[in-house]
Amino acid sequence: MKLKSKILGLAAEKPIVILNKEDAEELDVHPSDRVELFFGRRKGTAIANVAERFVKEGEMGLYSEIAEHMKVKNGDSIEVIPSEPPSSLIHIREKLSGKTLDDSSIRKIVEDTVDRKLSEIELTAFVIALYNHGMTTSEVAALSKAMAFTGKTLDLGKKRIFDKHSIGGVPGDKTSMILVPIIGAAGLTIPKTSSRAITSPAGTADRFECLAPVNLGFEEIKKIVNKINCCLVWGGAVDLAPADDLFIKIEYPLSIDPLLLPSVMSKKKAVGANYLVIDIPTGDGTKVKTTKEAEGLAERFIDLGKKLGIQTVGASTYGGQPIGFGIGPALEAREALMTLKNGKGPLDTVDKVTHIAGILLDYKMGSGGKDEALRLLRSGKAYRKLKEIIEMQGGNPRIRPDDLPIGSERVEVKSNVGGIVSWIDNHSIVEISRAAGTPKDKGAGILLKKKTGDIVKKGETLFEIYAHKNYKLERALKIANSCRAVGVGKKHDMLLEKIPRKMTHPKYFILER
Amino acid sequence: MKLKSKILGLAAEKPIVILNKEDAEELDVHPSDRVELFFGRRKGTAIANVAERFVKEGEMGLYSEIAEHMKVKNGDSIEVIPSEPPSSLIHIREKLSGKTLDDSSIRKIVEDTVDRKLSEIELTAFVIALYNHGMTTSEVAALSKAMAFTGKTLDLGKKRIFDKHSIGGVPGDKTSMILVPIIGAAGLTIPKTSSRAITSPAGTADRFECLAPVNLGFEEIKKIVNKINCCLVWGGAVDLAPADDLFIKIEYPLSIDPLLLPSVMSKKKAVGANYLVIDIPTGDGTKVKTTKEAEGLAERFIDLGKKLGIQTVGASTYGGQPIGFGIGPALEAREALMTLKNGKGPLDTVDKVTHIAGILLDYKMGSGGKDEALRLLRSGKAYRKLKEIIEMQGGNPRIRPDDLPIGSERVEVKSNVGGIVSWIDNHSIVEISRAAGTPKDKGAGILLKKKTGDIVKKGETLFEIYAHKNYKLERALKIANSCRAVGVGKKHDMLLEKIPRKMTHPKYFILER
Repeated sequence: MKLKSKILGLAAEKPIVILNKEDAEELDVHPSDRVELFFGRRKGTAIANVAERFVKEGEMGLYSEIAEHMKVKNGDSIEVIPSEPPSSLIHIREKLSGKTLDDSSIRKIVEDTVDRKLSEIELTAFVIALYNHGMTTSEVAALSKAMAFTGKTLDLGKKRIFDKHSIGGVPGDKTSMILVPIIGAAGLTIPKTSSRAITSPAGTADRFECLAPVNLGFEEIKKIVNKINCCLVWGGAVDLAPADDLFIKIEYPLSIDPLLLPSVMSKKKAVGANYLVIDIPTGDGTKVKTTKEAEGLAERFIDLGKKLGIQTVGASTYGGQPIGFGIGPALEAREALMTLKNGKGPLDTVDKVTHIAGILLDYKMGSGGKDEALRLLRSGKAYRKLKEIIEMQGGNPRIRPDDLPIGSERVEVKSNVGGIVSWIDNHSIVEISRAAGTPKDKGAGILLKKKTGDIVKKGETLFEIYAHKNYKLERALKIANSCRAVGVGKKHDMLLEKIPRKMTHPKYFILER
Repeated sequence: MKLKSKILGLAAEKPIVILNKEDAEELDVHPSDRVELFFGRRKGTAIANVAERFVKEGEMGLYSEIAEHMKVKNGDSIEVIPSEPPSSLIHIREKLSGKTLDDSSIRKIVEDTVDRKLSEIELTAFVIALYNHGMTTSEVAALSKAMAFTGKTLDLGKKRIFDKHSIGGVPGDKTSMILVPIIGAAGLTIPKTSSRAITSPAGTADRFECLAPVNLGFEEIKKIVNKINCCLVWGGAVDLAPADDLFIKIEYPLSIDPLLLPSVMSKKKAVGANYLVIDIPTGDGTKVKTTKEAEGLAERFIDLGKKLGIQTVGASTYGGQPIGFGIGPALEAREALMTLKNGKGPLDTVDKVTHIAGILLDYKMGSGGKDEALRLLRSGKAYRKLKEIIEMQGGNPRIRPDDLPIGSERVEVKSNVGGIVSWIDNHSIVEISRAAGTPKDKGAGILLKKKTGDIVKKGETLFEIYAHKNYKLERALKIANSCRAVGVGKKHDMLLEKIPRKMTHPKYFILER
């Protein structure tokens, strides 16, 4: 059937066309069915929406993506025929009914995902099928590879590529920002790509952006890593494992994350890593509540690593309270910069960084990695490497901690009792910080004045909230006053919480990986 | 945040707004999150899409539905705040993790479905959760009631309301069209609502529309049934159990149908039926392959009926080949009209109709229902009732079988061997018929010349294909020539099919209920 194109100027990140109901019936096309389009020598596949009035009979509305792909203009005559459903749909249905998929079926699903051939309903079905039925290690490996190889891959031509990943869940975690310069200073290759925050106050990319640009292209990254053997860039700018973003769009509203392992490992595979440490923050208020759970997860990463040719070590780290004192992109960047500049910093932060860096250095040295990491930090070598990274990525290497713009709106939250800090609740810290404007407002966030175990006097400041705008500060303060982000009590206090009735828990889901 | 409205003139059957990426980040709103809108005294909930360029910062694009609901014009300033996810989402997640839901949770999900508060991803999650974990009878009952009571309900003020339903799957099934006049002629109340075809050549509404209008409103139906105690109308026009259509949109592309029972029974509940017969066509090429399966399904309908106050009997009927000879709206309507007019018709059709009508009549008479049904058919009483229905619904009661417009394009498909018809393949018949233009082209379809067990000479016609347009006839004929819709062989032929390699089966999914 020939239909006259009507360009809608609407973007949906999906190739959508809108058919008139009469034409759709004539073609025997239902909403969400796919159609094949032909225009001159160009052809394309689109998902059909059906409207009664919005497009006239004989017309077809085109969203931007498909219009650009087909290079059609308003009024062009396009041949439309119903298409067979993509073959990967059969495999999605198989998985939905509990079957184990082979490598080629998984590859097909990921290809059709990246090519936008699957509708939102079909993608949701796939993600939920994985959530319900789980995956064998072979399936996870196939999925990781397919996700890696349907995107760009970095070939640095080096024998040993090191990498580090945190599955996230603990606020204030500036480990990567301090670790990469240490590893780089040791002469190891670490092309670190990081994510931006989705549900947290800051991702490594958000933090490091306070010091230097992170939206680098593939060729730039290659050049930089070839010269100084490390970088700290945003993975989203380089189209690594693009299927992941499409899966995340499904997982986020449902608060499920069946793709944690392939999501992480596909990106490591894409940058060519073969020596990896996975940080698993563990404790109440993080993703992983117990060391037992952390061990299980680490083992799955290790098994998967074996199948992908990535030697992997897991590290379960204490995540029961924020890391260091600053939470929010600039506050964390400042803390990391100070730590590297001074060769010392918050004890928990330095301990965590050097332990994890030590695991990577042990791949090279066999043992003594942690001490070596501490030496590289204290000697200023890591700081010099940081300045190289900043300069190569286009930032100012002479930037000082005080140069980082912190929100001008500020309020102190004080303790109304004296005692000892028994706990700091990550969830509340995240909620307050996001209300204050993070991650968008880089200078917003929280500066802790006390941490677990510290002695507090009545009226003493527990933490400060920073914001760029007063209404956001007010909003954050309101939350801070309504929840107990920091628990202060006597050393022998045993009651954690009194539960007088059935509690309704607000949605709290950490998607960060 | 105040945003300037930009009316898009786009309909999506969902309340969608499009925010600029910057504004979305400022509001901490992710794609698919919901936002609350305030304009003057009006408020509304919408699902947020996020675009980088399509709407400018400070602007918000509105789809028609939400624009109309809020009564906003281009350029109006609308207050936007992020909203809490609908509470039903918690229950969807519970079901997704395998929990059994209570009545109020199910009711909330259905309400939010009908109010368009759930996104496509969330609805898909719900449908798949039902598919994966199944439902208890209590859950199915709660779902059926919720689906009925979130739509319109018919109150006829009668003590006994009869109804009949076929779960579908066999082409050419004109049972309801013949049965309703018989039951009506017996003096029983049967307010029959039917569906249009989704994946089949014709639904009862499509068939009866060849004789009289079927798009009647609630008050008209009430008036007609009060006067002549029966009707034959399209359920879609009266907003019965509107959640069902929204669930069907998810089920269809995935070829799954976990909502069969609540879909059927919610509509029976909505018309106030309390005596019901469920026809379960059984056999190769239908939905239900064996009598064992049919028994299981019937039992589930009976149990559910008990919980809903609907006395239910199941009838497993032979569905291994089409019912009667005509397939397609007009060809089937003509066959039904002739059967009623002449008081006799194809043997299988009459046997099926009178058996099923008999079950309903037995509710009243105790026994002898089938004979009574046959008597009402043969005596012409059923035909007189049909004419009343046609007249009351606005058709011409003097319409004759030959008045029905059959497609002018016609081709005969002949047998290239002599023998006996061993089988007729429903799937192929459906495929050919839809290629010929059904259900949209009312006069298109197939007229069988032979049925299973008939003797065929070489070169004799097996069936005729009718179409309105030549290219559709060609298309249908091409399919007819490439598949074996009718199998002709020797009486003792035992081989059904030779399977030389792994077969790839095309999508074949019957959604009709």
